[in-house]
Amino acid sequence: MSKILTEVLSANQGYASTFDKGHLPLPPARGFAILTCMDARLDPAKYAGLSEGDAHVTRNAGGRASDDAIRSLVISHKLLGTQEWFVIHHTDCGMELFTNDIMADLLGQSLDTATIDASGWHDVGKGPGSADGKYINWLTIKNQEQSVVEDVLRIRNHSLVPKYIPIYGFIYDVKTGKLVEVPDAMKAGSPL
Amino acid sequence: MSKILTEVLSANQGYASTFDKGHLPLPPARGFAILTCMDARLDPAKYAGLSEGDAHVTRNAGGRASDDAIRSLVISHKLLGTQEWFVIHHTDCGMELFTNDIMADLLGQSLDTATIDASGWHDVGKGPGSADGKYINWLTIKNQEQSVVEDVLRIRNHSLVPKYIPIYGFIYDVKTGKLVEVPDAMKAGSPL
Repeated sequence: MSKILTEVLSANQGYASTFDKGHLPLPPARGFAILTCMDARLDPAKYAGLSEGDAHVTRNAGGRASDDAIRSLVISHKLLGTQEWFVIHHTDCGMELFTNDIMADLLGQSLDTATIDASGWHDVGKGPGSADGKYINWLTIKNQEQSVVEDVLRIRNHSLVPKYIPIYGFIYDVKTGKLVEVPDAMKAGSPL
Repeated sequence: MSKILTEVLSANQGYASTFDKGHLPLPPARGFAILTCMDARLDPAKYAGLSEGDAHVTRNAGGRASDDAIRSLVISHKLLGTQEWFVIHHTDCGMELFTNDIMADLLGQSLDTATIDASGWHDVGKGPGSADGKYINWLTIKNQEQSVVEDVLRIRNHSLVPKYIPIYGFIYDVKTGKLVEVPDAMKAGSPL
């Protein structure tokens, strides 16, 4: 068993040993959902003050409003009753460090982890790579404020999203732990 | 400002006031990633023992290996160095409570939150609905063990996923807080 697997299962044993949340109902008690980035430095439960049972948390690379994120949000409202949604990107996001072309080129060389330095990305893997990286939109980010506005707008304008749901747009600052409002996103996400 | 927005920002102010994680680097310190469900009762940081900076956490409705989840996992390994992945579904998942047809029918009637009782789902919204729900695969689940195996296999067989990454399959029990191994998924996710 790997070190990581052992550690995770040991931590889980500790959590389960004092677990007292077995009674919680399925629908989120506080009736809201957060879409945010998978970044390891982000703990949405901590930065937004969530206890188990409070809110849905959807995460992907960038916290982007992908079709899959929208699938999750529509289920969250339609079947499980959430009435307010947050889109939260963050400073120093990995999605700002590459482009679709860079990712396709790197994967074309090898599937192994690449390295980055001041001159850019370098593939150091042994290969073989795969051309399939060209067929994926990696949803990279040029500007965080702009990506939050874009994603809030995409959700706002989706045909399966009710016009009355407020969608809030924020950037989480990884240096300070603060949620910083994106005014244009708040405007874009206002109920219609 | 809504009650929820006020509460989230107030909780965030508390978190930021004692924040001491501003130095963390972007790549996950413990080099692994978790794909799990958005369910409100799941707190992956707690159930798997994660501190800020430790691991990537990707979440969607069901914890499914959607194209978007695989996009996130490939970025996680290729650019940010994770070397082990967990797929963690859970008991009493909302994704077991409906089918693609049920969701399309409900959305066709209205976009508002539906209710469920012993006789099934009922749409109580005012409409109008949208036919667009028919064009989405909602990735529902019939059997949790089977869905974990399927998703681990889908990731294992993806052309952009290196054969050497172990993919672990678990079910989180919402009644006990325990991670329960899915043996067939562990086998399916073994390095090749």
